[in-house]
Parts: sequence; C-alpha cells; structure tokens
Amino acid sequence: MAAQHTPLYTLTGSQALALLKQNAVTVEGYASALLERIKDRDPTVRAWTYLDPAYVLRQARELDQIPQDQRGPLHGLPVGVKDVINTQDMPTQFGSALYQGHQPSLDSSAVAILRAAGALIFGKTTTTEFTVANSGPGTTNPHDPNRTPGGSSCGSAAAVADFHVPVSLGTQTGGSIIRPASYTGIFALKPTFNAVSPEGQKMFSPTFDTFGFFARSVQDLQLLSDVLAIQDDEAPKGTPLEDMFIALMKTPMWPSAGQGTIAAMDKAVMALRESGIQVQEVDFPPDMANAATLKRIQKIICMSEAQESFLREYRMDKSKLGPEMRALLEDFKSTHKERVDATDTYNDMRRIMNGLSLQYSAIIAPSAADEAPVGLDDMGSAIFNTMWTGFHMPVVNVPAFTGDHGMPIGLSLVASRFRDQHLLRVAMALVEPLVNKGGWRAEEGSRQQ
Amino acid sequence: MAAQHTPLYTLTGSQALALLKQNAVTVEGYASALLERIKDRDPTVRAWTYLDPAYVLRQARELDQIPQDQRGPLHGLPVGVKDVINTQDMPTQFGSALYQGHQPSLDSSAVAILRAAGALIFGKTTTTEFTVANSGPGTTNPHDPNRTPGGSSCGSAAAVADFHVPVSLGTQTGGSIIRPASYTGIFALKPTFNAVSPEGQKMFSPTFDTFGFFARSVQDLQLLSDVLAIQDDEAPKGTPLEDMFIALMKTPMWPSAGQGTIAAMDKAVMALRESGIQVQEVDFPPDMANAATLKRIQKIICMSEAQESFLREYRMDKSKLGPEMRALLEDFKSTHKERVDATDTYNDMRRIMNGLSLQYSAIIAPSAADEAPVGLDDMGSAIFNTMWTGFHMPVVNVPAFTGDHGMPIGLSLVASRFRDQHLLRVAMALVEPLVNKGGWRAEEGSRQQ
Repeated sequence: MAAQHTPLYTLTGSQALALLKQNAVTVEGYASALLERIKDRDPTVRAWTYLDPAYVLRQARELDQIPQDQRGPLHGLPVGVKDVINTQDMPTQFGSALYQGHQPSLDSSAVAILRAAGALIFGKTTTTEFTVANSGPGTTNPHDPNRTPGGSSCGSAAAVADFHVPVSLGTQTGGSIIRPASYTGIFALKPTFNAVSPEGQKMFSPTFDTFGFFARSVQDLQLLSDVLAIQDDEAPKGTPLEDMFIALMKTPMWPSAGQGTIAAMDKAVMALRESGIQVQEVDFPPDMANAATLKRIQKIICMSEAQESFLREYRMDKSKLGPEMRALLEDFKSTHKERVDATDTYNDMRRIMNGLSLQYSAIIAPSAADEAPVGLDDMGSAIFNTMWTGFHMPVVNVPAFTGDHGMPIGLSLVASRFRDQHLLRVAMALVEPLVNKGGWRAEEGSRQQ
Repeated sequence: MAAQHTPLYTLTGSQALALLKQNAVTVEGYASALLERIKDRDPTVRAWTYLDPAYVLRQARELDQIPQDQRGPLHGLPVGVKDVINTQDMPTQFGSALYQGHQPSLDSSAVAILRAAGALIFGKTTTTEFTVANSGPGTTNPHDPNRTPGGSSCGSAAAVADFHVPVSLGTQTGGSIIRPASYTGIFALKPTFNAVSPEGQKMFSPTFDTFGFFARSVQDLQLLSDVLAIQDDEAPKGTPLEDMFIALMKTPMWPSAGQGTIAAMDKAVMALRESGIQVQEVDFPPDMANAATLKRIQKIICMSEAQESFLREYRMDKSKLGPEMRALLEDFKSTHKERVDATDTYNDMRRIMNGLSLQYSAIIAPSAADEAPVGLDDMGSAIFNTMWTGFHMPVVNVPAFTGDHGMPIGLSLVASRFRDQHLLRVAMALVEPLVNKGGWRAEEGSRQQ
C-alpha cells in the first residue's frame, strides 16, 4: 500500500480517496500530513495567501464524522483555491490592495459543487493583481526557487507541484493555467469554455475567462471533471495507440519557441511514432490570421472587455490599483469597431479550428515558450495559450520533458469544444509514451497515469 | 418650478437632480416623498422585495451631509435594484427559496459605479425565481392590478412606472427589460451586450445575460448611460427628423403579434412619415434563420448554458427549486454538437444583423406581442426580444401607444453594437412623433423628452 511506504502528501487525489474510503487514513490524518509539508516548504514556495491550519483540521474532523454511507465522491479531497475564486468561509482578495480582507458571501459555482461532493476546501493560493498583472506575489517554482512558477495561477500550480495539496483550482484568460502547469511539471485541464460556470470568479475578459484545475495525474483531472459534470455527447472510447492520429501544430507563434520547447516538440513526435501513433504536422489553415493579426485581435477583445470589467475598481479607488492595472485602464485604446470586427473574426477562426481538430485524436502544441524564466518579476508569456482559450477548446497540459536547465516543459493536448472527456482519455493513453519516456521527473513522489 | 406644483415623486431623475443641485430639496425630503408614495401604492403594486425606509432615510441624510463640491453626478438619485443584482448593504435573494436572507459581500459592478457617483440605492425590486421562472412574485401592473407588469424585471418596471423611484436596474436574458417596459409604459435601455459589466448579477445564460435600466424619460436613460461609461466611437450628432431613415422590421416572429402591436406598428409608420421621416419596411435577410429555427437555436444556447449556471443550486438542494427550474435542469436535453452549431450560426446572424442595421438611423420593431396579459401567472412572452438580446444590439423601449384595453404598448428602437448613445439621440428625437402623438399616457406626472 502506497501510504505505508511513501509520505501521505505525495499521494495523488485518487490514491488518497482510495485510502480514505478503506478507512486506512482519516481526513484529519491526511490533512495533517499536508499541513506539515506546507509548514516545511511554504516559507520557500509561498504558494498560499490564506491558510488557517486550525480551520482545515476542524473541517477535516467534521468530514470524519460523516457516516460512510453519506459521504460524497470527493470525501476528504483537499483542494487549493486560487484567490480570484470566491470562498464563503475564507477571504478572497483577488491579489488586490482594494480587496484586503474581503470575505465573499458565497462560494464560486465550482467550489460549491466540489464542497457539496465532500471536498475539503483547504485554503487560498496566490495570484497576481486581478490575474492581469504578470508579477507580484513572490511565489517560487518548487523546482528552483529562483524561477517563477508562472502566472497568474502561480499558487495553485506551485501548491500541487510541491505536494501541498493533490489538486487545486485556477482560472485562465490568456495562459494562466496551462503555462504554470508547464513551468511546474504537473497536469492541468482547461476545460471547454463555460463547461463549468465561471460564476463567483473575478471577471477579467468574459470571452476568454475559463475555469480549470491542476493535478499530478490525469486520473485526478478526470475525477474533478466527472463531479463538475463535464460531459461529452458520446461516452469516449479508449483508442488503442495505433489507431490514434495526432496533429502536431506549431502554431503561428512558433518563432517565439525557445530551444527547450523546440526540442520537446521533436521528442514528442519521436516518442509518439515509436509507440505506433500516427503524427502529422499541421499548419494553421490558410484562412486564419497570421501571428501578428491573431495577437492584435486577442489583445483588442481581452483589453477592451477588461476595461469594462474593472471600471468599478477604477471608480472605487484608482489609487489602490497597481501600474499594470492603471496602464490597462488608462492607456489602452481601441475603437468599438475594432472590437466588433475582432470578435466576429475570432468567432470565424473558432469555428474553423474546432472543425479542423475533429479530424484528429488530438492536437499537440507547445504549452509555453520554454522552461520557466529565471526571476520572479517576469511570470512568462501566454503566447502559446491564448488562442486555445479564445477558441474555447479544452486543453490538457502533459508534463513531458525537461529543458536545458533541468526544468519541466509541458505540451498541450487540445481537442474541439465539449470533447473534454475524450481528451482526458487521449491524455491518459499518452502518459506512457510522453511522460514515462519523457525526460521530466519530479524529485519526490511519482506522477501516476 | 415643477416641485412646487407637482408631487416630488412624479419628477424624472433629471428633474429631481436639478432641484437637489439647487438645494431646492434635500435628498431626505425627496426620499421621504418617494417612501410615502410607496407606502400608499405598494400594497397594490408589490414591486419591492426588500425596502427599509429607516435605512433609506439614513443614507439620504448622509448624502445631504456631503459638501456641495464633493457631490457626484448622481448625488441623491434613488435607484431601485432588481433582486438578482448584488447589493452589499441589502439582501439579494434571486427570487429563490435557496437564498432567503442571502447578504452579498459586494455590490454588482453597476451598483458600485452608480453608488460611487452618489446614487441612493433605495431597495430591492421583485423578480421571478432566478429570472428563469415566468410567474411568482405577485407584482401587479400599476395601470391595472389584474394584469402582469411582465417578467422577469417586474418589480423594477412597476416601481418606475408607478413613481416609486425615478430609475431602476434590471437584467435581460430573453426580454426581461424591454417587455416589462412595454407592459408598464416606460422607457428602458438594454445596452449593447457587455457595455456594462454583468459582474455581480446572477448568471443565467452568459451569451444572453445583459444589464439594463428603466426610466420615465430618455434623458434619465442618458444620465445613467453616461455615468456607466457607455460610449460610442464617435460622439453622436443630433440628426434632424427629415434626415432620419428608419427600418420597420416586423421580424420572423410577426405571426405572434396581437392586434395591439399590429396597430402600434402601423401607427408608428404614419406618425414617423407625418414628421417627414423616411421609413422602409425591411425583412430579415434571406440568409437568416426562419422563426422556428431562430427560436430553436436561441433555446438550445440559453437552456444549455443555464444548465451549467444552475448546476450548483441543483447540487446544493434541488428540493428548494421551483417547477420551472426543475424542468430546465432535469428535462431539457440538447447535445453539445447542437449547441456548438447553434452558437456558430448565431454568431453569423449577429454579424449580418449588425451590418444591416448600420444602413439605418435605427430599426423599429415590436417590444411585445401585445398589451400586458390579464392575470399574474403568465408574465408574457419574450418572443420579440430574445433575438436582439442575442444579437447583442442596444434596444430602447419607447412607450408610444395604447392597446384596446387602455394598456400601454411600446416599440423597440434598435441599433448596431456600441451605438447606444446614437440610439438614445434617435429615441429622444422620436419622442415627439411617437410618444407625444402616440395614444399612451400615464395617469399621473408626465414623461419628458
């Protein structure tokens, strides 16, 4: 039994739930092990912005009191929650000086659903100011304290990568889930847009804002997806590796790829082909925008929506907004006509790309430009992520490879809208060729299929 | 001076603000007059679900204490707030048994902006369960207590129509602003989608959910629009009546129009032409969906999004959901493929219709099928509204005509996305031919241009 040989904190969520179900461990015992780990490590990692150990243990004991036959499917599963996602029992401060001590009255939609299923809402993880800023909280990459874990879901990614909790919640408007998952070497799912209601997470750009989550196994992503009612039209069938057909898509952003990502894409092709999987390099369709236009369109939609979303904060007290927020609200200019045209063009591209993706088992694309950058002030670029967010397509980060500095480099698996469960099955099948044959390993514990 | 000859409660917001600015009346005095009116009338109208007169007066006195040179542009303007829009100082119950006594921690985006501009947030107005149900709160039409004021912004429409407050806030997913405005004989603006952030209003269908407001004059709509930063690319110029070009659009839903609406559209054409305005009857473009397809597409998008939005309530305690909510969550079925196709098709129609509307000063279309129906259990149909909501186009209801039973019948003025200010200028110019020459008059007070 894993629990007898490895520390409890290294278990995946699915492994821990199995032990809880067998009464081999109590929720309190499990939570205590995680709290110990956090106590040891968080002075370095700084993943948490709010964590009350006494309250965690009180909740854990209450869960232990629930009779076995009344327990939910996530009974006792510790969940970290990004601090732009509302929790009714913990402050939610959006990484903003304006909201210090703010205590929401309701859980977000996702937190409410997970809590109702028995999850132990553990604490709040760090984020950047309103997820807009790209620096700030001082969270470090668990694999190198001199590097960023990536923004803006920095705390949620670092907490899972460093074994503080098995799973955590995040949001992605550009690349705020998939990029930190890549930088910290863990799995993550950004589901299809609106497959999970974003209610109760701070709005930034409603066309892009997407809820998602981090884990150290595909099975844990599956577990949360099932409870959150993420369903395909048809129950996905397991596809044998030899029947898979993968599109390798470097995307128009490829000139931004660094050596680590270039090498990772090459290694992926080799590993997949060695496993008998058909891989075809596929260009963006010729009627799609080029890189410059795509970036411009995304920026116009996202920034103009953000100006509406944050008008209230600007009017409340602009002196409490940081420089990136001020620049967004005061300096960014675009016309409504540009925005309307950008939105209509983007709708067209969304349809084209979703249609194209239906021809393949999945698309493989970069999750980030390279390894996590050195330093904590630059939390990396969303350049390889924003398009999939805007196309509303589900994305799984697979922590496959290692860069020149020994840091993880993930790859994105992408499918068409509302094929999330299919995508998870593909990811599960590709763990063997990509992760187990890839170069990346965490120092402690093991990622499970 | 109006205040010396007519009761204070009959003033429009703009008129009241002028008196407040001149110190001809205090906020407390004005609020007291409204509270008296409500005390007299609300036992019949039942527009309010939460109203604390002592708290209103306390806020009013605090506003009166603010030095003249520190007062905001809406200083002392009483605003009613639909009970699906969060208020940090008043319960917000979403018309739902699940949220009895629920007290939000934050104002909605719009409430925060209006409050920061000096508005007096007066109380919460009735709505139907989560705005999804089409019966429930027992609010009556101020012009006939045996008729509905229309849903789901019933309380906000009735409160303004009955002179309880000069302006009020609502939301529209199908026709929940424009229809009640038509039924109660007042003006309303449903702005361009997302021109005002919907943050802090309960989500129903994110593709359709739109914030808007009610008033008894176009100037009051303008006042709120300005404070909420609703702006066109170009400052609108006043167009002389003889240079206007209006598209009369009966829409594919025309077979649902009753005698009152048929007559109102005819009368509108005559009145406009008599004023020298060019009017052209315009069909929906041939490449748009027919009525049945349009209704089906709208239903698929709206209902499937709603199933995600309300999953949390279903999981929390489905026994506290009413029959319409249960039917939505348990019985409605569509595939993701249907939803994706519907969304993509709707995006195309949105672009076509917005492009078409740019050829005209405005489109005139029905606001409702007919006068407000008799009885309180059927709050009317959104059949003439949902398409404009989904096309994301701004709509003003103009309370122009009277039906066979002496009840008001409004017409919708529609423009393309982000031409809200232009639309308000057109509405202002058309008050003379449409409202002053139309048949509808409220018993008390007068609507002002």
